[in-house]
Amino acid sequence: MADIQKLEQLAKLIRYFCLVSTTEAGSGHPSSSLSAADLMTGLLFGGAFRYDVDQPKHPNNDRLIFSKGHASPLFYSLWFAAGKVSEQEMMTLRKFGSPLEGHPTPSFPYTEAATGSLGQGLSIGVGMALNAKYLDELPYRTYVLLGDSEMAEGSQWEAMEIAAYYKLNNLVAILDVNRLGQRGETMYGHNLDVYKKRAAAFGWEPIVIDGHYMPQILTAYDQAGQSRDKPVMIIAKTEKGKGISFIEGKNGWHGKALTKDELARALPELGTIDKNLRGEIRRPDDFIPAVRESAKAEPIAYAVDKPVSTRHAYGTALERLAIQYPEIVVLDAEVSNSTFADIFKKGHPARFFEMFIAEQNMVGAGLGLSLRGKVPFVSTFAAFLTRAFDQIRMSRYSNANIKFCGSHAGVSIGVDGSSQMGLEDIAMFRTVLDSVVLYPSDAVAAEKLVEEAARHQGMVYLRTTREDTPIIYRNDEAFRIGGSKVLKRSNQDVATVIAAGITLHEALAAYELLKKEGVLIGVIDCYSIKPIDQGTLAAAATATRELIVVEDHFAEGGMGEAVRTALADVPVSLHSLAVRQMPKSGKPQELLDYEGISAKAIVKKVRELL
Amino acid sequence: MADIQKLEQLAKLIRYFCLVSTTEAGSGHPSSSLSAADLMTGLLFGGAFRYDVDQPKHPNNDRLIFSKGHASPLFYSLWFAAGKVSEQEMMTLRKFGSPLEGHPTPSFPYTEAATGSLGQGLSIGVGMALNAKYLDELPYRTYVLLGDSEMAEGSQWEAMEIAAYYKLNNLVAILDVNRLGQRGETMYGHNLDVYKKRAAAFGWEPIVIDGHYMPQILTAYDQAGQSRDKPVMIIAKTEKGKGISFIEGKNGWHGKALTKDELARALPELGTIDKNLRGEIRRPDDFIPAVRESAKAEPIAYAVDKPVSTRHAYGTALERLAIQYPEIVVLDAEVSNSTFADIFKKGHPARFFEMFIAEQNMVGAGLGLSLRGKVPFVSTFAAFLTRAFDQIRMSRYSNANIKFCGSHAGVSIGVDGSSQMGLEDIAMFRTVLDSVVLYPSDAVAAEKLVEEAARHQGMVYLRTTREDTPIIYRNDEAFRIGGSKVLKRSNQDVATVIAAGITLHEALAAYELLKKEGVLIGVIDCYSIKPIDQGTLAAAATATRELIVVEDHFAEGGMGEAVRTALADVPVSLHSLAVRQMPKSGKPQELLDYEGISAKAIVKKVRELL
Repeated sequence: MADIQKLEQLAKLIRYFCLVSTTEAGSGHPSSSLSAADLMTGLLFGGAFRYDVDQPKHPNNDRLIFSKGHASPLFYSLWFAAGKVSEQEMMTLRKFGSPLEGHPTPSFPYTEAATGSLGQGLSIGVGMALNAKYLDELPYRTYVLLGDSEMAEGSQWEAMEIAAYYKLNNLVAILDVNRLGQRGETMYGHNLDVYKKRAAAFGWEPIVIDGHYMPQILTAYDQAGQSRDKPVMIIAKTEKGKGISFIEGKNGWHGKALTKDELARALPELGTIDKNLRGEIRRPDDFIPAVRESAKAEPIAYAVDKPVSTRHAYGTALERLAIQYPEIVVLDAEVSNSTFADIFKKGHPARFFEMFIAEQNMVGAGLGLSLRGKVPFVSTFAAFLTRAFDQIRMSRYSNANIKFCGSHAGVSIGVDGSSQMGLEDIAMFRTVLDSVVLYPSDAVAAEKLVEEAARHQGMVYLRTTREDTPIIYRNDEAFRIGGSKVLKRSNQDVATVIAAGITLHEALAAYELLKKEGVLIGVIDCYSIKPIDQGTLAAAATATRELIVVEDHFAEGGMGEAVRTALADVPVSLHSLAVRQMPKSGKPQELLDYEGISAKAIVKKVRELL
Repeated sequence: MADIQKLEQLAKLIRYFCLVSTTEAGSGHPSSSLSAADLMTGLLFGGAFRYDVDQPKHPNNDRLIFSKGHASPLFYSLWFAAGKVSEQEMMTLRKFGSPLEGHPTPSFPYTEAATGSLGQGLSIGVGMALNAKYLDELPYRTYVLLGDSEMAEGSQWEAMEIAAYYKLNNLVAILDVNRLGQRGETMYGHNLDVYKKRAAAFGWEPIVIDGHYMPQILTAYDQAGQSRDKPVMIIAKTEKGKGISFIEGKNGWHGKALTKDELARALPELGTIDKNLRGEIRRPDDFIPAVRESAKAEPIAYAVDKPVSTRHAYGTALERLAIQYPEIVVLDAEVSNSTFADIFKKGHPARFFEMFIAEQNMVGAGLGLSLRGKVPFVSTFAAFLTRAFDQIRMSRYSNANIKFCGSHAGVSIGVDGSSQMGLEDIAMFRTVLDSVVLYPSDAVAAEKLVEEAARHQGMVYLRTTREDTPIIYRNDEAFRIGGSKVLKRSNQDVATVIAAGITLHEALAAYELLKKEGVLIGVIDCYSIKPIDQGTLAAAATATRELIVVEDHFAEGGMGEAVRTALADVPVSLHSLAVRQMPKSGKPQELLDYEGISAKAIVKKVRELL
């Protein structure tokens, strides 16, 4: 039986630190913290939440994600109340080098996932709940604190529909309806019925409560724990700035710390604060996560005379490697028969999650799975991964270990036209700090690079091609992140062509055409675009002075610029052939010609250089 | 009174062309076309739709957007039935150079907006409906054909909530519930009640019908026309492949053209086809769109001694220019008091649309407004524009005339931390074909560049800074797309620093520091990152040989690579200072130092070069 009075005292202490830490910082979001203070105090210290405070990585810990990341002062104050943050540390909020950043990041050990871009936490929670229910088979629950403003984000409804589809009764969303957004009222103000109807329509169990009345809060968590097959949304009516009369429920106080004078007026309103008070969090169980056995994967055996698309090899690689890497799980956005993720699905249905056409939630869920120790491979058309750029960007700040596969790259997909062509994906993934960008040219390379991706700790992007392409490598050829392959080289080379994926085959065709004229060129397979094989490229630059980079991608941010940057200190004449005209429908070869990235275009360019 | 029998005959003719054109093309989506054939035939030729078939640009035309763009064979066949496409043209479907592309694009004159990335059409429709109701004040209606699979996209629910919020009773969504997605059944199959409940919960008027029963179809459109203050969703139960027994309602037929043999089996099932049959579309009214008067804007008058942020200047520029450019409208994602779009809002509330925290729909609605002749300025934090990359990418394929403003660029925003920092926005917008990327350093430049953006036809991105920065330009200084400013230059320059936005002030500070040591550097304000001022940069390269590009953006795809590419043919030693370490909370100056893009870092780099 929870001690309501103690919880209310704890909530006061927590409010105190929300206020003083932000005033000390001179910025932050005290009002958005105060609205959720009772909800979160009740959760952590009221008996529902189970967590080993000395082991944040404990697999049985319940998970708490602050999707409304700007309420970070509340988040840190909760851990003060749990005895894991000192008063001194609280006063470093937002300071350079402090783990208590403006929005939660992994530099604070109790952060489950970095947040701050709204509408992402619930998807991450979906990933963690999927893990508990279907993979680790553990009883931990995942709680996500949501703001009402962020319910406008479509990604929330993606997470809602998928959570219901997968019957995630171990997922609890706590919606802090404080009525006020950044610049004024939300679309629905305190009309809780709107949220209730929507949650119900999306297959959730809604529980409407007064978010400042502790007994009701505790009852709600208790009720949430009994859901049989539905995720639960606790919809709480709250007041922004609750507890401080001159900001409570008032507009104009978003993202504003109190001045010292205001703080002096505010603190007495809280009443007596006991700084020595600490809350107890229930310990979790010690169940062992379900373990899958592993064994060495079979080697590959491609026949040289049978073209295979790299997207197909992606699927076969995942299926083949599944046994060796039991942490691999696969997510796809309703196009698994195009990305060929469905080859994995057929072999390992329990490790495949259909995420339907909802790329943002797919990436967020991938992040959640990654943070629970899985190695998610997330696939759709390269073009449609742009849908999740914000989630991709944010994943990095959670130190994600996600592998992305974008199929149907470039104009070479042909007749489907511009909307389906991934032409900005390399640029997008290159911007991610420490990311790896791989672009195999044949099935052997694709198989090997999928394995390299699985072994690498961090974010990896693998770009695959729609069309079947010839096998150019031996089955025992080795590939590495940061590597390249010199396929043609001689002392008479007039230029070196740097290509990857579909354009590598164009480069090899150009080589043959030019050879007939007695002109020799070098050809390099630049399959690792980031990191890039600076040494090999520089050697080629020194040897031939003329480099031609050919890519089925827009010129900006792509392989051409990656090579240019890598060769900043090498004297070289570098020519970039890339997509520069409005793409359209047509046959792959027509479009490669039209964009000037075909064998014909390479031959023309080489002739110009003679 | 509509002639049901004729409509049914027309539907057969339309089905005929959906089948023969895709078989001729050897690819395409006949089954997804057949499910909606009756719905669309009833709409166009049953009396509800009003359109001057000889004037696709007529301002009173009803608008029809195929959000499920893969049903393009149906779209083109409808215009065959309207007498605007010949049989011969129908047979060019998906061929190189044909206006009948795989997914609709503006190369076909009846395409309202390019589609093919699912879940985008409804947002575009929202923009067109906003225009009709609140700007042009015209009675045209906007119809959007939706697939059931694409309802999984969160962007749909963003469009739903905003359409209801703005009471768009002139917007009609037609949901073609054919039960089957690309690789199998959707989440809800033929459970139409799920869609009905969700539509109602999101404030729409749902009408559930049999999508193959013409009288019910016509009644639904009639009913939709009578809505007083709600958008209407017609939820139609349909069969994928309807009309051809061996594909109807069967899985495995997505995106597959019939073979010639299959076609020969299929066509007899349609019965007699009258190729000479044509449908009539009702003519629209000839109302004149509401006109706003225009007058010359006041000139600017910034005081040199008062720092102003470029984000603030963005807002004042819009407010000031509103009278001169009556087509300007402004959209913001619930952060108008941070982007300062709210300055425009205060002056011109009727031309401002609050789009709440739903960036994807904001960009889609912006596209809809742009396609109806408005010049939308769309703003949020630069970081959060990544949320809409897919919509931004697709906008280009509709030849959009949208102006994007991303505020809070770079680590220099300070204490809020990584989640709020736009560090990949330049790379993202550079990938857009023919895009313009502008990055003003002071309020004068920002004001002038907002006007240049408004005057430019096409997609423009303007990057603004959170912090107040000194005024460095005279109020009569001119700026142009593709220009730059040489701020410091002498014969003794040991290097030239190329900067923009916040880093320009660091460069100027570095200049002063070095000058005290007797070292001179050139400084260029590269405010137009795309197109870039190649001539001026090349001259600086020739003059000093050492160039240092400093940017508050990740190294990949940013200004450094833009400069590198521009100077491909110029011998120069180019050094890039950019964001390369995990960003975090801190004061702006601490973070500029930490990332090595501050005055101190520039001085250090210059000294290394001495």
